[in-house]
Amino acid sequence: MEQVPEFISQLPTPCCLIEKQKLQRNIARLSNHIGQLGCQIRPHVKTHKSIDVTREIINGGNVKGITVSTLREAQHFFEHGFSDILYAVGITPNKLEQVAQLMQSGCDIKIVLDNPDMANLILQTAQQLACTFKIMIELDTDGHRSGVDPKSDELIEIAKMLEGNEYTQLIGVMTHAGESYACFTHESKLAMAKQERDLSLLAAERLRQAGYACDEVSIGSSPTAHAIDNLDGITEVRAGVYVFFDLVMSGLQVCNQEDIAMSVLASVIGYQKDKNWVITDAGWMAMSRDRGTQSHSVDQGYGVVRDQQGKLLGDYIVNDANQEHGIVRHRDPNHGFSIDAFPLAGKVRVLPNHACSTAAQFDHFIVVDQDRVIAQWPSVRGW
Amino acid sequence: MEQVPEFISQLPTPCCLIEKQKLQRNIARLSNHIGQLGCQIRPHVKTHKSIDVTREIINGGNVKGITVSTLREAQHFFEHGFSDILYAVGITPNKLEQVAQLMQSGCDIKIVLDNPDMANLILQTAQQLACTFKIMIELDTDGHRSGVDPKSDELIEIAKMLEGNEYTQLIGVMTHAGESYACFTHESKLAMAKQERDLSLLAAERLRQAGYACDEVSIGSSPTAHAIDNLDGITEVRAGVYVFFDLVMSGLQVCNQEDIAMSVLASVIGYQKDKNWVITDAGWMAMSRDRGTQSHSVDQGYGVVRDQQGKLLGDYIVNDANQEHGIVRHRDPNHGFSIDAFPLAGKVRVLPNHACSTAAQFDHFIVVDQDRVIAQWPSVRGW
Repeated sequence: MEQVPEFISQLPTPCCLIEKQKLQRNIARLSNHIGQLGCQIRPHVKTHKSIDVTREIINGGNVKGITVSTLREAQHFFEHGFSDILYAVGITPNKLEQVAQLMQSGCDIKIVLDNPDMANLILQTAQQLACTFKIMIELDTDGHRSGVDPKSDELIEIAKMLEGNEYTQLIGVMTHAGESYACFTHESKLAMAKQERDLSLLAAERLRQAGYACDEVSIGSSPTAHAIDNLDGITEVRAGVYVFFDLVMSGLQVCNQEDIAMSVLASVIGYQKDKNWVITDAGWMAMSRDRGTQSHSVDQGYGVVRDQQGKLLGDYIVNDANQEHGIVRHRDPNHGFSIDAFPLAGKVRVLPNHACSTAAQFDHFIVVDQDRVIAQWPSVRGW
Repeated sequence: MEQVPEFISQLPTPCCLIEKQKLQRNIARLSNHIGQLGCQIRPHVKTHKSIDVTREIINGGNVKGITVSTLREAQHFFEHGFSDILYAVGITPNKLEQVAQLMQSGCDIKIVLDNPDMANLILQTAQQLACTFKIMIELDTDGHRSGVDPKSDELIEIAKMLEGNEYTQLIGVMTHAGESYACFTHESKLAMAKQERDLSLLAAERLRQAGYACDEVSIGSSPTAHAIDNLDGITEVRAGVYVFFDLVMSGLQVCNQEDIAMSVLASVIGYQKDKNWVITDAGWMAMSRDRGTQSHSVDQGYGVVRDQQGKLLGDYIVNDANQEHGIVRHRDPNHGFSIDAFPLAGKVRVLPNHACSTAAQFDHFIVVDQDRVIAQWPSVRGW
């Protein structure tokens, strides 16, 4: 930790702040909820890619293993003592050698696929590598992206392809109800959560009735994980963004804006007073280009602007962004701003649309408690 | 360069490809154009943050120095032998100590500001640091973001604040006509280029008539730099994305799609055949969340999909993206795809909306010539 200042007011800008108390509260909320339903979480570390955040999650309890979105994450977390890893993006043969190396080093890594042809390709490559891979079948429970239909013949065909050889071992099914990001009411989130759960249980039951093993039934997204009220038959719940939360999550009413643990600290570099603009040094390189609230009833631009302490300043957003410039204004373009609220060279905090994409713009997080800097946590990137 | 394969077909995915011949052609095009107008370029390295790309730009000729968007870039390029640097984002006092350290190490770094109050703050901090800073006044020539009005009294007030002391040295004016990204015809780009040039010349003339030095008149954006036809009085032209080009630039008719030197290599991981979807492993983490063509007459989604060799496959785009999943389909949702064009585990190339934001998602570029990998060039990130 090189020359990290003692107080937020002394930090270089832009930088990415994590409020530790909010982080711990968010972690506890999901860990407790899933624990009360008799289940465990397999947190998705793609959100932060941070060993330190993951240790906080483990401290929160009810953790089974981790989920990763890249083999770089798998490698990094394995090197830091995490061995129970689900790589939750459909595998391709060109990634299998690296998976084999991880397994041979003692990493208990699981891979996913969603069609018989890929199962066949993976089997062929596994034979060449003389390695046994643990495989989960990805299910499409919401029409959102990849996955096999839980009611299809193809599901059984995949299992058939994987069984009866020493190179591929079917361990279960997994799904992610990404469509929950379009569910704005509790009722719709609960309905989506039940659909995610019930279709996964159906697929598992169909596999078992056809004579195949299906020990694991893995589901989850931050909105459905918080909404679900019964997890009988489910062996793990995956979620990522719940540790930080963000404006997409508060827009979906999964949390309040006050729960958002991540913000970008920015400095005021100038104004265009005739346009009611405040210009900051946090552009899209800091916030990311994510416009996840664009489809919400309240579009938050590139982020909600608060004061240096994180308190509300009124309805100010980053209305536009260049690479290293943020253009801040009131939601009402005719509404001005006070210089007291936005002093020249003063600092503001910006709450992000999407914690995963904003986090990925930074090499590290600055962990804070009130106005103090208490730690600097590195993260990884790349593939 | 650790285990970089010989052929594109052997590369891990996703990765970011640079076609060297196209890069060199793009560089030569602007260097020659600006050279023919009797001027020089100060390339903006924010696009690639790569020493190797910058060396190619210097090989192209007519280069005066470099432009950076962060002090991290300034530090990195100075450590690699580049000393004539313009840091083109409005300075704040909290960044001045780092600038002073660079200057004391021999870096000829110039900073910018756009209002008298910041000039005053910088002067005060400069006195404390006992260092003389070279300053350019940022002009607003297009209403796009920051900068002082070239016709305003404030312009002269800034100069007055900077002159007559040993800590701040006014060296000139600079502007960036970002509104050129809304100019879809040659005529509108040329008009914007003339406006950018003429308002900068006006500001320089007003400063000189008021008795202040204004040696440098620095202008530029990739669209206006290519459009401008006379640079008399202009001392340097800044541009960044012209080295790679991208779908925003081809949408603006600054280049053809065939000129785009950057692409993301992705693998096909599956399909949703009933929806005519091909799923790849290049999601928004690889492409970035940039949707720069969203406002164009042709919205390219998250990128245009070509085959492994970079040849057109038809009108296929990355229609939607999750963090590590790209959803590819024909622009017409009812139009299918052939498995021959998108074989399972096969590779495709995706042309990006915005080269700067896509480049920032990667630690390095894979440099290719036809089907061969010829180099791996690292880049930097952060602030």
